[in-house]
Amino acid sequence: MKLSNKDILNIEDLSVDEIQLIIDTAESLKEISARKIKKVPTLRGKTVINLFYEASTRTRTSFEIAGKRLSADTVNISTSTSSVAKGETLVDTAKTLESMNPDVIIIRHSASGAPHIIAGLLQQSVINAGDGTHEHPTQALLDMMTLREKRGTLAGLKVAIVGDIAHSRVARSNIHGLTKMGAQVALSGPAVMMPRYIEKLGVTVHNRMEDAIRGVDVIMMLRIQFERQGTAIFPSMREYSKYYCLTGDRIRLAQDDVLVMHPGPINRGIEIAPDVAYGSHSVILDQVANGVAVRMALLYLLAGGN
Amino acid sequence: MKLSNKDILNIEDLSVDEIQLIIDTAESLKEISARKIKKVPTLRGKTVINLFYEASTRTRTSFEIAGKRLSADTVNISTSTSSVAKGETLVDTAKTLESMNPDVIIIRHSASGAPHIIAGLLQQSVINAGDGTHEHPTQALLDMMTLREKRGTLAGLKVAIVGDIAHSRVARSNIHGLTKMGAQVALSGPAVMMPRYIEKLGVTVHNRMEDAIRGVDVIMMLRIQFERQGTAIFPSMREYSKYYCLTGDRIRLAQDDVLVMHPGPINRGIEIAPDVAYGSHSVILDQVANGVAVRMALLYLLAGGN
Amino acid sequence: MKLSNKDILNIEDLSVDEIQLIIDTAESLKEISARKIKKVPTLRGKTVINLFYEASTRTRTSFEIAGKRLSADTVNISTSTSSVAKGETLVDTAKTLESMNPDVIIIRHSASGAPHIIAGLLQQSVINAGDGTHEHPTQALLDMMTLREKRGTLAGLKVAIVGDIAHSRVARSNIHGLTKMGAQVALSGPAVMMPRYIEKLGVTVHNRMEDAIRGVDVIMMLRIQFERQGTAIFPSMREYSKYYCLTGDRIRLAQDDVLVMHPGPINRGIEIAPDVAYGSHSVILDQVANGVAVRMALLYLLAGGN
Repeated sequence: MKLSNKDILNIEDLSVDEIQLIIDTAESLKEISARKIKKVPTLRGKTVINLFYEASTRTRTSFEIAGKRLSADTVNISTSTSSVAKGETLVDTAKTLESMNPDVIIIRHSASGAPHIIAGLLQQSVINAGDGTHEHPTQALLDMMTLREKRGTLAGLKVAIVGDIAHSRVARSNIHGLTKMGAQVALSGPAVMMPRYIEKLGVTVHNRMEDAIRGVDVIMMLRIQFERQGTAIFPSMREYSKYYCLTGDRIRLAQDDVLVMHPGPINRGIEIAPDVAYGSHSVILDQVANGVAVRMALLYLLAGGN
Repeated sequence: MKLSNKDILNIEDLSVDEIQLIIDTAESLKEISARKIKKVPTLRGKTVINLFYEASTRTRTSFEIAGKRLSADTVNISTSTSSVAKGETLVDTAKTLESMNPDVIIIRHSASGAPHIIAGLLQQSVINAGDGTHEHPTQALLDMMTLREKRGTLAGLKVAIVGDIAHSRVARSNIHGLTKMGAQVALSGPAVMMPRYIEKLGVTVHNRMEDAIRGVDVIMMLRIQFERQGTAIFPSMREYSKYYCLTGDRIRLAQDDVLVMHPGPINRGIEIAPDVAYGSHSVILDQVANGVAVRMALLYLLAGGN
Repeated sequence: MKLSNKDILNIEDLSVDEIQLIIDTAESLKEISARKIKKVPTLRGKTVINLFYEASTRTRTSFEIAGKRLSADTVNISTSTSSVAKGETLVDTAKTLESMNPDVIIIRHSASGAPHIIAGLLQQSVINAGDGTHEHPTQALLDMMTLREKRGTLAGLKVAIVGDIAHSRVARSNIHGLTKMGAQVALSGPAVMMPRYIEKLGVTVHNRMEDAIRGVDVIMMLRIQFERQGTAIFPSMREYSKYYCLTGDRIRLAQDDVLVMHPGPINRGIEIAPDVAYGSHSVILDQVANGVAVRMALLYLLAGGN
């Protein structure tokens, strides 16, 4: 089986079978990172470009390591040192890079839809590494891989997603992915952070965090995106924390073996208590490890083939 | 045949035979970038340093990809993250890097002559990736490669170069290269952007763009270097555009099969109309593709040999 | 023989035998950088992360080249393009990187003790590439390698270290290393740049530079760390230079064959005269070359083994 598309832009567009294929592939590639020699020649002679218009440690590093472990040549471009400073348009940058014959372009951009524009123009594969407040598909794939790894299946799992839903591309990708795979998703967050009509995606919405997490198998906390919000949209961090921080007390409302997730980087003590972030329920570091595996899988599926 | 010098600093210093050698080599290496496995072991164990004192996407990425496809180890140094911030002189930086035994140092610098200073001090090969308003030899080489590829020969071609000639290292390198190879070069631009006595280089100068491009085989548009001009030297962009933007209308003054070139990044609608930039006459993306090939050729000729 | 610890954090913690082992290993690996093919497969499939919270050319480039010549995959993270900008704690960044299964994390940080904190948390090897005003162990190792190379042994050598001792991690690492290896160390610098009780480390302190360098075998000049001092702590550069700049005149006070060292980048004419920096006594560029060798040795000893 193969992916039906040359690009990975949205979870919304992937079929259940495609998601399964990606996770299956990631699971089989994961052990490479545990070897003494963490490298296979699969993508030797392939060129992978990380085109990052927003700062990132984990995502860029994760893609770069994924590429290198498959023996691809990886090239990083970040806005601070690029032609972007000279006012070149995204389309021109993309066409220029295309002419250098890369195999995959990974793009993170502050504008929702940016990866889709360039994917439509280029012959090469494009992977969306996060676009504005739209989607962050590789994050959702690694989250789903982590849940399947821990629970065997996603079907029937009860998942609460808590925080700034409106500004979160992680939330959006996970809502599409989890509902598609048969999980039940409950959302919670302050009213100003909850998109209207979000119930239409097949989720439930709860103003109180306690109502969303009661009895769930998984609590996925979102990062408060200080850097993505023009102005403060709630009175104070202390106020936010009081109602929406995942504390040890609140965890007890969920299943005894509840899994705690966070896409990182965490704001300690704001959306998650430090002891919870690395406590017994946390799978946050499994998410990071699976991030490398999922990205290896995508590079392999898009550029490896034959 | 070999290059007579260990460095590539100017087109002015290259002989006709050397230019032919570089383009021949680039043509034979170009197909590597079209393979499934875009990599040959030629420069395995060689170290190539990109030392960029000015922001760049295309040139740095082009050199980096060229190096990697020849299996060289590539190291990027940009001013924003370097000792330069600590006030080290260029000479000290160069001597320091020399002691780490690289094979080639590629340097871009805002000061004209900077690459020449370090080339004189170091045993290693130095490639000028653009110095101030002086030269940008790899750009002219890829331009000449593109023209030879499209027209078979440079001899006798009529080429118009239009824009800010005075601030353009691309113009200077191309004037040297094209006249050396037997092409006829006509320049046009506002009087304040035209260097005095430039006719001594064997070119004609036309105040009106229309006079320069009438009947030519090639129109090479220059980028308005907003970032390199201290102050505005012409009243307005609209004014500039009115007289010097390459539009579909103006193209009709040239030969029917005229080739349109631009070194990028383009300022859409200022020096070139968007539909012209990617229109049927445009070879802008061929230029980018040939850029990788020319840089592979230079790395091979300087560091590959035996 | 092996290193007793998984990390290289301080010279203070290394035994004489360990320092010898590192220098012996570096000497045997040094010739790789002089080969035509400067690369061995020793660390193929290993991942080395350069995590730099302070700007650096020489140290980051030196580690990167060292890693690449041993065939490791190297990944650079600098603060300007990282999650650090999003306020992530050092501990969270370290744990995140750990989950991506690197073999060695090299860290430079403005806070003294930062590498020790993450070394205590992570299973992987951590190398301190400079922490605040504390230590810079790889610099001292390359300095000691250079002295042993030039003089055969460190025992009995008379070494003067001159400059801003209080703010210098290079001084601190060298004081520990040189005294441990049997050299005699004399310090000199303005009173405001001399730590109290520093004599307890087994060194002598001289207010006048002339008294410190008289008859010594080695003069190690320190960089004035403009970027690390909150405010000016001495009246003027001219004043500093008058008393503490290493000039040709002052050199004559030392042994005829005195070796002049500097960790770089140098402030020409402030702590060292330009003609002295590259004069016949200078081993500054040997230091840089040995830097690559020492870092190859550490990567090999920590990650190569079996």
